[in-house]
Amino acid sequence: MNDAYLKPVIAYFMDLQDRICNQIETVDKKGRFQQDRWQREKGGGGRSRVLKNGAVFEQAGVGFSHVYGESLPDSATAHRPELAGREFNACGVSLVFHPKNPHVPTVHMNVRFFIAEKDGHEPVWWFGGGFDLTPFYAVEGDVIEWHQKAKAALDAVDESLYPKYKPWCDDYFYLKHRNEARGVGGIFFDDLNDRSFEEAFAVVKAVGDAFCDAYCPIVERRKETPYTEQQRAFQLYRRGRYVEFNLVWDRGTLFGLQTGGRTESILMSMPPMVRWEYDWQPQPDSAEAQLTEHFLIPRDWAAMADD
Amino acid sequence: MNDAYLKPVIAYFMDLQDRICNQIETVDKKGRFQQDRWQREKGGGGRSRVLKNGAVFEQAGVGFSHVYGESLPDSATAHRPELAGREFNACGVSLVFHPKNPHVPTVHMNVRFFIAEKDGHEPVWWFGGGFDLTPFYAVEGDVIEWHQKAKAALDAVDESLYPKYKPWCDDYFYLKHRNEARGVGGIFFDDLNDRSFEEAFAVVKAVGDAFCDAYCPIVERRKETPYTEQQRAFQLYRRGRYVEFNLVWDRGTLFGLQTGGRTESILMSMPPMVRWEYDWQPQPDSAEAQLTEHFLIPRDWAAMADD
Repeated sequence: MNDAYLKPVIAYFMDLQDRICNQIETVDKKGRFQQDRWQREKGGGGRSRVLKNGAVFEQAGVGFSHVYGESLPDSATAHRPELAGREFNACGVSLVFHPKNPHVPTVHMNVRFFIAEKDGHEPVWWFGGGFDLTPFYAVEGDVIEWHQKAKAALDAVDESLYPKYKPWCDDYFYLKHRNEARGVGGIFFDDLNDRSFEEAFAVVKAVGDAFCDAYCPIVERRKETPYTEQQRAFQLYRRGRYVEFNLVWDRGTLFGLQTGGRTESILMSMPPMVRWEYDWQPQPDSAEAQLTEHFLIPRDWAAMADD
Repeated sequence: MNDAYLKPVIAYFMDLQDRICNQIETVDKKGRFQQDRWQREKGGGGRSRVLKNGAVFEQAGVGFSHVYGESLPDSATAHRPELAGREFNACGVSLVFHPKNPHVPTVHMNVRFFIAEKDGHEPVWWFGGGFDLTPFYAVEGDVIEWHQKAKAALDAVDESLYPKYKPWCDDYFYLKHRNEARGVGGIFFDDLNDRSFEEAFAVVKAVGDAFCDAYCPIVERRKETPYTEQQRAFQLYRRGRYVEFNLVWDRGTLFGLQTGGRTESILMSMPPMVRWEYDWQPQPDSAEAQLTEHFLIPRDWAAMADD
């Protein structure tokens, strides 16, 4: 195990989990995170933190994990078959927040680090991560600000990143069986190892550090917006799409479930309440129709003026 | 297209859909099925029927489909790679009923027929199907009767079938990531072509014809049982397992979603309302604990005496 790489990353990730949980408790005022520590039989473990039934968040889960093993699974090496079977360490922070109020968007963030080692060879490491927003009743200014903050965070490190990570996010969080984006996107990247460790780590830190500043102001602005039962029903219906994405398409979720990860920690991302309705269609020109017709279409939000 | 095989099967399946919908409307008294006819761009189509907000059924979906194409997809030929790329016809009836009352079990039934053809070769056909029960507050006598009726239906055709199809069902409807059976099982089979067409068709007819007689008496006995809010919450929680199975493990669902089937018809099986709760555990010795500890363990129910 290569401490020179792992130690600072793990320290950053654990601190990031602490900071995010503190900020979310401050926003929520009422809810408090409960922590479960868990061990993985084959090596490693994590600490899962869940806030249930808050004032703002119906459920918020923030997980840190660090697992290791003797043989990197195939699914983690799809793009680098030469690494299959190496000893590995993997660590990360992953979160999904499900607000109560349908005017507050659902959000997801993940940062992760892998290192694969083999006697007599240089260790191979890479970072991945990103954050993306899933509104129900989207406000254009919020979406623009979300993307501008994501762009600013990455631009401060390397201006070539946002133009790559923004469309990567649109591609990744896409429900092919619905021909529909999961949300309004954000940034996503994987396999980052085209620069020095310190430089790559700086990208991940920029993403992790920017998250709360991008998300919490939107929550503060929308959390008191009154909503109707019909809007709440629409939120529960749209949460079904989140479940469909996570269980059908998300590589991380499927990999975890199919290879014996801690199920409750992996499925911490599931919404607390969800609704499906056969062949439901929004009214033409309604706010519900606008979500799919205007917002769930990839756009260059960061370049738009909020008027 | 081989009409000698397809015509009688399609006629039986369409009639079975009619008969089941009629019987379910009779049981429900209030709810009525609405039908959607749909066409598949690459050949074929179906008729989806959904009953929403009935007196007994929160949602009941019964789909008939007949699709055909020029090239049998790989996923349908996992056990017979020599058939990949053949012209094919596939037809079937598939249903999932989600009752309101947590004392009434959720149920699933499917019957299907495939035929793969190639110039200069004999056509290759096979049947598949089965039905399985997913109770929330299970009653042992109901489970025994369910299995005895499944067994009796198959025994009337061939006594060697139930002993194979019962454990096959237990194996298939299993959530590996939960180490948990989806329900109390029933019967499941695939690739049935070890006998004449007429004899194999007789097996499928025995399954289709037995379904309502096995399920409806349980519904009639349990539909008026009073239930608490807590029992309803448990039902919604357990429906989460149904979603997890269908989206993570069910080959038919995944095949449909990943290859461009009609999404709304495939996801007709999703429950109308579902709940997830992080790390929820039943109280020791409660009815909720009994479900997983006593009922969701494969047992030879048909051989048990109901006392």
